[in-house]
Amino acid sequence: MSQSVSLQPQQCDPIAAVATPVGVGALAIVRISGKGVHELADRVFRKVNGGGPSLATSPGYTAHFGRLYDGDELVDEVIALVFRAPLSFTAEDMVEFTCHGGPVVVRQVLKLLLDNGCRLAEAGEFTRRAFLNGRIDLLQAEAIGEMIHARSESAYRTAVTQMKGDLSEKLGDLREQLLRSCALIELELDFSEEDVEFQSREELSAQIDTLRREVDKLVDSYQHGRLLSEGVATVIAGRPNAGKSTLLNTLLGQERAIVSHMPGTTRDYIEECFIYDKTMFRLTDTAGLRETGEEIEHEGIRRSRMKMAEADLILYLFDIATDKLEEEIADIRELRQTHPNARFIAVANKIDRIESSEALTEKVQQETSAEVIGISALDGKGIDFLKQRMGSLVKDLNKLHEASVLITSLRHYEALRNAADALQNAEELITRESETELIAFELRSALDYVGEITGKVVNEEILNTIFSRFCIGK
Amino acid sequence: MSQSVSLQPQQCDPIAAVATPVGVGALAIVRISGKGVHELADRVFRKVNGGGPSLATSPGYTAHFGRLYDGDELVDEVIALVFRAPLSFTAEDMVEFTCHGGPVVVRQVLKLLLDNGCRLAEAGEFTRRAFLNGRIDLLQAEAIGEMIHARSESAYRTAVTQMKGDLSEKLGDLREQLLRSCALIELELDFSEEDVEFQSREELSAQIDTLRREVDKLVDSYQHGRLLSEGVATVIAGRPNAGKSTLLNTLLGQERAIVSHMPGTTRDYIEECFIYDKTMFRLTDTAGLRETGEEIEHEGIRRSRMKMAEADLILYLFDIATDKLEEEIADIRELRQTHPNARFIAVANKIDRIESSEALTEKVQQETSAEVIGISALDGKGIDFLKQRMGSLVKDLNKLHEASVLITSLRHYEALRNAADALQNAEELITRESETELIAFELRSALDYVGEITGKVVNEEILNTIFSRFCIGK
Repeated sequence: MSQSVSLQPQQCDPIAAVATPVGVGALAIVRISGKGVHELADRVFRKVNGGGPSLATSPGYTAHFGRLYDGDELVDEVIALVFRAPLSFTAEDMVEFTCHGGPVVVRQVLKLLLDNGCRLAEAGEFTRRAFLNGRIDLLQAEAIGEMIHARSESAYRTAVTQMKGDLSEKLGDLREQLLRSCALIELELDFSEEDVEFQSREELSAQIDTLRREVDKLVDSYQHGRLLSEGVATVIAGRPNAGKSTLLNTLLGQERAIVSHMPGTTRDYIEECFIYDKTMFRLTDTAGLRETGEEIEHEGIRRSRMKMAEADLILYLFDIATDKLEEEIADIRELRQTHPNARFIAVANKIDRIESSEALTEKVQQETSAEVIGISALDGKGIDFLKQRMGSLVKDLNKLHEASVLITSLRHYEALRNAADALQNAEELITRESETELIAFELRSALDYVGEITGKVVNEEILNTIFSRFCIGK
Repeated sequence: MSQSVSLQPQQCDPIAAVATPVGVGALAIVRISGKGVHELADRVFRKVNGGGPSLATSPGYTAHFGRLYDGDELVDEVIALVFRAPLSFTAEDMVEFTCHGGPVVVRQVLKLLLDNGCRLAEAGEFTRRAFLNGRIDLLQAEAIGEMIHARSESAYRTAVTQMKGDLSEKLGDLREQLLRSCALIELELDFSEEDVEFQSREELSAQIDTLRREVDKLVDSYQHGRLLSEGVATVIAGRPNAGKSTLLNTLLGQERAIVSHMPGTTRDYIEECFIYDKTMFRLTDTAGLRETGEEIEHEGIRRSRMKMAEADLILYLFDIATDKLEEEIADIRELRQTHPNARFIAVANKIDRIESSEALTEKVQQETSAEVIGISALDGKGIDFLKQRMGSLVKDLNKLHEASVLITSLRHYEALRNAADALQNAEELITRESETELIAFELRSALDYVGEITGKVVNEEILNTIFSRFCIGK
């Protein structure tokens, strides 16, 4: 069970880190946070033209043009931006130095600050302090991480919504209702000798049922939220030499997988992304699906099967000019049966090879009742239509959850699943007229699970897992 | 001859660009500059908690926490830093938005500003405006570029000194003295009918001589300044299969050039850098120096010769176990004669192959009077000592110009060379008692050449050349 960590606003030891990406650019930001950073900054910063107050006596949200010196040696001309606790990102005293953007310059500026009393920040330490000081909740901390790593516009948009606090608000409401139910039933425990009920069991059960439905809605939204934030897991399956790698490259618009004419070339799966209509598709090119004696290829096929089991969308590619069309039709039928939850498109490749391709495509469609799209992976014919159809299948999913707040993280999904389970247990206990203690325990569990998400209830382990994924300077 | 461009402070059309390197980081800066950018920013920026003045009415050097909106859609949470003309980098009105650092976020923020009236800045346009508005001189503009691209600490340090304005000051002094001489002699021209001399020709000649010596000192410093800023051009020469690529890799500490046992593998030259004791060495691995029938290799050898002609330091690598040691000795002698200006080390490779390597090394040293260092490129034996000796040879150069201001750019070098020539012409004209007009013309030329460096006298072509090398956002 989770354990509380201190959430008292406090100023920790001064830390420093480069906050901007590494590389060549006009500007970079090196930031410092913690106890005494203004005085520390004053030791190395001199205003150009001397005048004005020191950084330590300057108001928050003021900028100062000056130079950083290592003793008498000029390090760089910078803008120093002063923040005073608690009105800063970390809620501590902070200074952000905007210096020139070259890798050597940035290293020198950072070194200067480390030499003068800062230590190098750990991964995610700035955001961790922002959370521990109550400036942002855990959801918002995670949203910042997701926003920075977003690879598609929809992933970015989902993160922005989470940063804004929509999900935090929703969970806050849920938690408050749960707290009320908890409080009443725990009051009964306090007065247990008097055998009093502060709320009828029917009322309580109805309340819990409403709450569980709300939680379930959020749990259900994960399927869609994950699509938006991680992209649509799309598997390209098919027999060896059907043209899977060529299709992958054509969809990506670049040469990525090594294309060869030897059957069984793609030994392992390759994952690449492309974006269509603001949605990201994560494409997996699988090893050819056929029985084989080779050890290494066998492993590849095992992995392909695993990938297919997790797929949101399966593109089954086959050669329309094959002399084994009946086998392909059987395979398509089987795949659809074994993967009922995945969206499915049968892709007829090499339509330029034979004249009867249209008739054959129709035959496959009729005999499998799958959607069949004819393409030529090599010259790109039909690819635009295929992309359009892929987009439509996902648009369809989009509509299901248009208005609601979305769950995008596995951590939140699992916590909410646990909360829903606890609520269901509570309902069952009420039905079975079980002891008040047991009902109270389940409600308290549900409350803790919901609290874990925003960080109201949290343990070191969760924090370490979350912030270790951040980069230094964040 | 150069032509003046307008240096009037002015506010141009609003431009926007990402100023930080591209990539994943905690923060990024998107900046806008020009007429009306405060009002433009107010259209998309809303303060968190509403309060306080708008950006347009905020004083310069104040920061504001808020959100960027595209209509009603949240784009990001940002800090907006307001600068008011002329107290900004460009000397125009500016706003710097510090937003989250992910590529998608940054793109959205930039897009928002472009959609609201900014145009994307051209390469170096911010710095160009800073120069045109008289905020910095051309030397400082170039120093910013060099600083950002610095790959070694010494290159960075040279750029910092130039940014600080030491060279600008030195050239300012020179220019003032030149102006005085010019003024006096041009006064004579105005009174030419009265045949008056405002300054004796001896005095003038002595002044010009002093100035020329000052200019010559700067010209001479280029050899050293270039070493600091561009690195020491180091060529690894030697016969095919002497182990040149292996030595290159050992010095770099990584696998870079493709090493092969076939003679003549390195067809073209490969350039890589390593830093020893704060100095950067630019290593060139040349194609084997031998006559060959193959067209492509012949071209490689031509280039190798060219590279050697430009080398600051030649490492001539030979196999100490060779049966053609006399030929190697002859080659070393010839190389030293044909490249008298380059520092030279003969590197005896494969010393672990034969027992007599020490005696043979000594023999080569005696017969060529070159410094010979024994190594084994393959297992790294002797490499540390070689690096140390390479460092010492350059330290030696360092001492020559320890105290003076350095010229690091070819553009400055050429302008100063031209100025020195003009001054010498002027001196000769005085000696030959030539007409005042001719003397005045040469002095005016010298003045213009010196002015070209800081940008007192400048033409569009020079500006385009300088700023096109900058990246967008600078």
